[in-house]
Amino acid sequence: MAGNTIGKLFRVTTFGESHGGAVGTVIDGCPSGILLSEADFTGEMERRRPGIRTFDTPRKETDRVEVLSGVFEGKTTGAPITLLIMNRDVESRPYEILRSLYRPGHADFTYEKKYSHIDHRGGGRSSARETAARVAAGVVAKKILEAQGIGLMGFTLELGGIRALNIDVTKVPLNPFSCPDPAVVEQMVQAIEAAGEAGDSVGGVVEIRVKGCPIGLGEPVFDKLDADLAKAVMSVGAVKGIEVGRGFGAAQLRGSENNDPMVPGGFKSNNAGGILGGISNGDEIILRAAVKPIPSIHRKQETIDRKGRPAVLELAGRYDICAIPRIIPVLEAMVAIVLGDHLLRWKATGGPGRQGTG
Amino acid sequence: MAGNTIGKLFRVTTFGESHGGAVGTVIDGCPSGILLSEADFTGEMERRRPGIRTFDTPRKETDRVEVLSGVFEGKTTGAPITLLIMNRDVESRPYEILRSLYRPGHADFTYEKKYSHIDHRGGGRSSARETAARVAAGVVAKKILEAQGIGLMGFTLELGGIRALNIDVTKVPLNPFSCPDPAVVEQMVQAIEAAGEAGDSVGGVVEIRVKGCPIGLGEPVFDKLDADLAKAVMSVGAVKGIEVGRGFGAAQLRGSENNDPMVPGGFKSNNAGGILGGISNGDEIILRAAVKPIPSIHRKQETIDRKGRPAVLELAGRYDICAIPRIIPVLEAMVAIVLGDHLLRWKATGGPGRQGTG
Amino acid sequence: MAGNTIGKLFRVTTFGESHGGAVGTVIDGCPSGILLSEADFTGEMERRRPGIRTFDTPRKETDRVEVLSGVFEGKTTGAPITLLIMNRDVESRPYEILRSLYRPGHADFTYEKKYSHIDHRGGGRSSARETAARVAAGVVAKKILEAQGIGLMGFTLELGGIRALNIDVTKVPLNPFSCPDPAVVEQMVQAIEAAGEAGDSVGGVVEIRVKGCPIGLGEPVFDKLDADLAKAVMSVGAVKGIEVGRGFGAAQLRGSENNDPMVPGGFKSNNAGGILGGISNGDEIILRAAVKPIPSIHRKQETIDRKGRPAVLELAGRYDICAIPRIIPVLEAMVAIVLGDHLLRWKATGGPGRQGTG
Amino acid sequence: MAGNTIGKLFRVTTFGESHGGAVGTVIDGCPSGILLSEADFTGEMERRRPGIRTFDTPRKETDRVEVLSGVFEGKTTGAPITLLIMNRDVESRPYEILRSLYRPGHADFTYEKKYSHIDHRGGGRSSARETAARVAAGVVAKKILEAQGIGLMGFTLELGGIRALNIDVTKVPLNPFSCPDPAVVEQMVQAIEAAGEAGDSVGGVVEIRVKGCPIGLGEPVFDKLDADLAKAVMSVGAVKGIEVGRGFGAAQLRGSENNDPMVPGGFKSNNAGGILGGISNGDEIILRAAVKPIPSIHRKQETIDRKGRPAVLELAGRYDICAIPRIIPVLEAMVAIVLGDHLLRWKATGGPGRQGTG
Repeated sequence: MAGNTIGKLFRVTTFGESHGGAVGTVIDGCPSGILLSEADFTGEMERRRPGIRTFDTPRKETDRVEVLSGVFEGKTTGAPITLLIMNRDVESRPYEILRSLYRPGHADFTYEKKYSHIDHRGGGRSSARETAARVAAGVVAKKILEAQGIGLMGFTLELGGIRALNIDVTKVPLNPFSCPDPAVVEQMVQAIEAAGEAGDSVGGVVEIRVKGCPIGLGEPVFDKLDADLAKAVMSVGAVKGIEVGRGFGAAQLRGSENNDPMVPGGFKSNNAGGILGGISNGDEIILRAAVKPIPSIHRKQETIDRKGRPAVLELAGRYDICAIPRIIPVLEAMVAIVLGDHLLRWKATGGPGRQGTG
Repeated sequence: MAGNTIGKLFRVTTFGESHGGAVGTVIDGCPSGILLSEADFTGEMERRRPGIRTFDTPRKETDRVEVLSGVFEGKTTGAPITLLIMNRDVESRPYEILRSLYRPGHADFTYEKKYSHIDHRGGGRSSARETAARVAAGVVAKKILEAQGIGLMGFTLELGGIRALNIDVTKVPLNPFSCPDPAVVEQMVQAIEAAGEAGDSVGGVVEIRVKGCPIGLGEPVFDKLDADLAKAVMSVGAVKGIEVGRGFGAAQLRGSENNDPMVPGGFKSNNAGGILGGISNGDEIILRAAVKPIPSIHRKQETIDRKGRPAVLELAGRYDICAIPRIIPVLEAMVAIVLGDHLLRWKATGGPGRQGTG
Repeated sequence: MAGNTIGKLFRVTTFGESHGGAVGTVIDGCPSGILLSEADFTGEMERRRPGIRTFDTPRKETDRVEVLSGVFEGKTTGAPITLLIMNRDVESRPYEILRSLYRPGHADFTYEKKYSHIDHRGGGRSSARETAARVAAGVVAKKILEAQGIGLMGFTLELGGIRALNIDVTKVPLNPFSCPDPAVVEQMVQAIEAAGEAGDSVGGVVEIRVKGCPIGLGEPVFDKLDADLAKAVMSVGAVKGIEVGRGFGAAQLRGSENNDPMVPGGFKSNNAGGILGGISNGDEIILRAAVKPIPSIHRKQETIDRKGRPAVLELAGRYDICAIPRIIPVLEAMVAIVLGDHLLRWKATGGPGRQGTG
Repeated sequence: MAGNTIGKLFRVTTFGESHGGAVGTVIDGCPSGILLSEADFTGEMERRRPGIRTFDTPRKETDRVEVLSGVFEGKTTGAPITLLIMNRDVESRPYEILRSLYRPGHADFTYEKKYSHIDHRGGGRSSARETAARVAAGVVAKKILEAQGIGLMGFTLELGGIRALNIDVTKVPLNPFSCPDPAVVEQMVQAIEAAGEAGDSVGGVVEIRVKGCPIGLGEPVFDKLDADLAKAVMSVGAVKGIEVGRGFGAAQLRGSENNDPMVPGGFKSNNAGGILGGISNGDEIILRAAVKPIPSIHRKQETIDRKGRPAVLELAGRYDICAIPRIIPVLEAMVAIVLGDHLLRWKATGGPGRQGTG
């Protein structure tokens, strides 16, 4: 019950289903006085728009975000900010088959068992459509971060088994895969096309980097910064793993290799990924998310119907072949929401200054 | 601020520092009527006891858990359960050097910057000593799970670069590394001894499996079961990554390989790791945590002092060479706490039955 | 920050300002399968409509509640329920004077100091307009209560100094003041009219009674049922006091008078107001709220302008003379929301049955 | 479930039962650097000590508060502060009768029904003994408030039907009833003695005043300052009503009488009790709590046994005749905890300064 809100002081609640009237978010706890207009959302919504390679014609229009409350005369008021994104271009017909069959890799089965209810129209609440609301909320969070000098960048580290080797983040905006290594982009194209021709899909790994985060964000021992980031990122449907800094690679290092030596002014390396003891250490925050291949494919799949009988599912219609790169602004949004929340929590005890009075 | 509690209905707060009077936990939300005695804690506290290979003499005694409230005549009462673990065998002297130097890989630096305060005695609140309280809370959580038929098992999947290949969980209790593959145990011993001789430490990967979890645990879209597990596991100091099911491996599969086909009675494979759409699907829950090498080593390390000047740190005294296997009961405890919390949340809407009334 | 949500498992967030596009609510944690349609809201919204006696023409139309998410094919789905109430009939002109002057008894001054921001259009977020969203959320809460056999009734105990003496709740629906004592209705009419002629306003006392509440709701020691009710009721702008059972009257009794003797099947009296030790005892829950007189009056008032200089405020336009009876459905909604939340929390540990497993 | 914590950033959890080993509290979210020693608690624990007039010999010793965690070298560290108060002088024998009979006015009946469990030893968790932990937590909260220049004072406004008429708060410390009107103290003595001779008990009204609260505390629309105060105060077992400013008296005023006119520098009157729109307005905060008569009396009472059969209860042993004045530090503690929490929430968005960045 009641799991649709994230954050403690900067609280984001999302609502809406893929084929209902709208998806949206209520943001409670945004400070007043922040400049915010509907135009601020356009760029991020465009980044999330499906999809550079799909089985079919992509949706044409970018989602428009309507600011329904919490902003007056161009500035936030301190009241809850409601952002609405109407569902257009909604076509339930291709989903009729889902009245009877569970889709492998989707939440049809678990939602029905949990809620005693079927929304066969594209997943309902479990649809990736919900992430549009997260991206919108992330735009507001990023405004708070920017005012503090904190900047985020996400990119495609791996896609369809092809991994970026020479990371140059200045290259990320220059190719449609948000890939920081131009040398492997053509291989990524081929990986996606090969999968598409086979009626199949691919996954990958996204890396997010955060610059300018002050020292001190994170609230041990449970609301550590990395713990809250892990939760937020893992709450995105396609994500099956998360690591910070060297992550799983650290498991194979010795302590003398993994410890980041300290030198005047900072750290000599950044295996920690910018977080020590659950608190930001002033270095760049680095995390990676494993993104599974899109479960909706055009191949025949073994499944059961809602009465438990064996069946074969063959989906048609428009699907992405890979959640990357459009998932990148979603993951950035989740990171921004967590950082925004921790920034406010940090300020509650004086931020960079002394906490107490003794 | 205020980050020392985890859970929504089954709420665990830990308190205490490594060299204060005690560590402990208050558990709020445990149902009444559960049999609980101090003897119930002995086994788990023994599993967490340091350490099969250390640089020095291990601590001798197992921690004793004192039940200070919430239990009457052998049963839980529904009131908060307070568990106290006194700190004995506390020796602050070897830590005097930490008054002036930051230890690489530890939280000394971030804690001082955040709290304007130094507890040089072994890390204070950031010490692994705090996890004793988590293990104690996990014992109570496991009682709730057992009553529901849910069982957990954790084991060493990888240690010092040596990976278990043939997983046979019945072998886990039969060797001191909790390794499910007896064929590689000797290599693990060698890896640890080689590191120890070099004054160094190693990391590894722990896998946790959960059997018997009913379908329906997890509260989308943010309090998904995998999201809450990720947070809880990542909140353990040594953990730098977490993955569910195929995890990072899923990023390299195609959809047709990663989707788990459904057959009457369940799933044909378990790449999902028992969680679909953030909700348990009735299959075994599988997750893995990347454990970094112990940061306290006996080699000289480059660091700075509290005035920012370059320095060399050389630690002596007793340290573990690897956090595994003693971290396993800690990770199991975190998983149990999350599952216990979600079990209660699930019951709030009728558990397996229909939720509503229409 | 972040104070716009109430409830732990049945969580109600409201949003919107008096002169923005809409007010509304997101309800997270409503069980699935509950029949819900837009028609269900009509009656309660009508009860809240202003106002039987005002200085001017009342608003004509009843608010319409639009269900934007969380309901599919006539039933709740377990996903967040979003309810929208568009603001129509919005006229900002009469509020121009509020750009410069603070209204005594209103939140203009504190909102400006807190949020560094002025919404001069009728109070913005602090307007009673926000309570329309509470009433809508209360309709959903009442559905949950009704399924459990719990029923609420609110009535006017006192208005403009006139107190109902012979309480007969069957009379409540039969007069426009929701007064349970027909003998005093005419005096209430006169009190309101006398105040109106003087350009003034009146307050009163509302009593809420709850029948059918099972034994066991309430979570000591802080989330006691009466404590959560007190918070919820006090969060309504016009309320300045709350009491349960004998309330302030109990302060003047002796223990032998105030204790409710127990007899087979229940209690011989109900001074406790249905709550003992913060837990419902199966008896009728009784509480009363003190409602202050409407602060918007037509008399000249001493105030200051936004630069702190003395000024005289003289309001014109349409205002209610008394918040009663239209505040009654608002107070009922708050009580219903608290009871709905506690009902779910109660069920999390088995509701009426045994909690544990020992 | 899980109702033993109050506060959002300054979080107080209490634990312990009247006849267990100890009662205590864990405070999470206290800023670091605050001077705190065990001696700081002595005064408040002494104020709470039972009781100036009892049926029997009062307990002799003042409770001692042990600081178990969160303080190092005399200052808070930012880690959870655990305060322990051992239960001494515990005598279960007189409670044997409670194994079979419910005490009218106590929580025996509701606790048994809710938790399927009986702690017959003086109420267990529902005992007023738990409030010792609240007072200890309040000491820490008051330290935070004092650093901000906020001071609290509670006094006896009414006792046994005798009301203070001429309020002079300088007189409060000068008499054992904490009465601000010396002229009525003798009547209060007589009221208590008369009740005591009759084997009976009395109630009263406590008023709490807060000076120096900055403008801006409180988080509409649900976590309003008055709403959170109402919850906190109502969560004290003996309290049956709460009012702010004019409270129930405001219900009988006209708007022109109740509105507080504004003048340069502040307000001309304080009917609002220092809170407007749920936010502190800079004026003195004033609230009153109705305290019911002690339910434990020496008169025969009609009740039932645990099998539902009629019975007569006749209590002996030591009881207070009135909860006042020893309840005053408990109520002050609750007010201090709420204010401390809201002070931190206020600081999270910049406190007195501008919130945003636009």
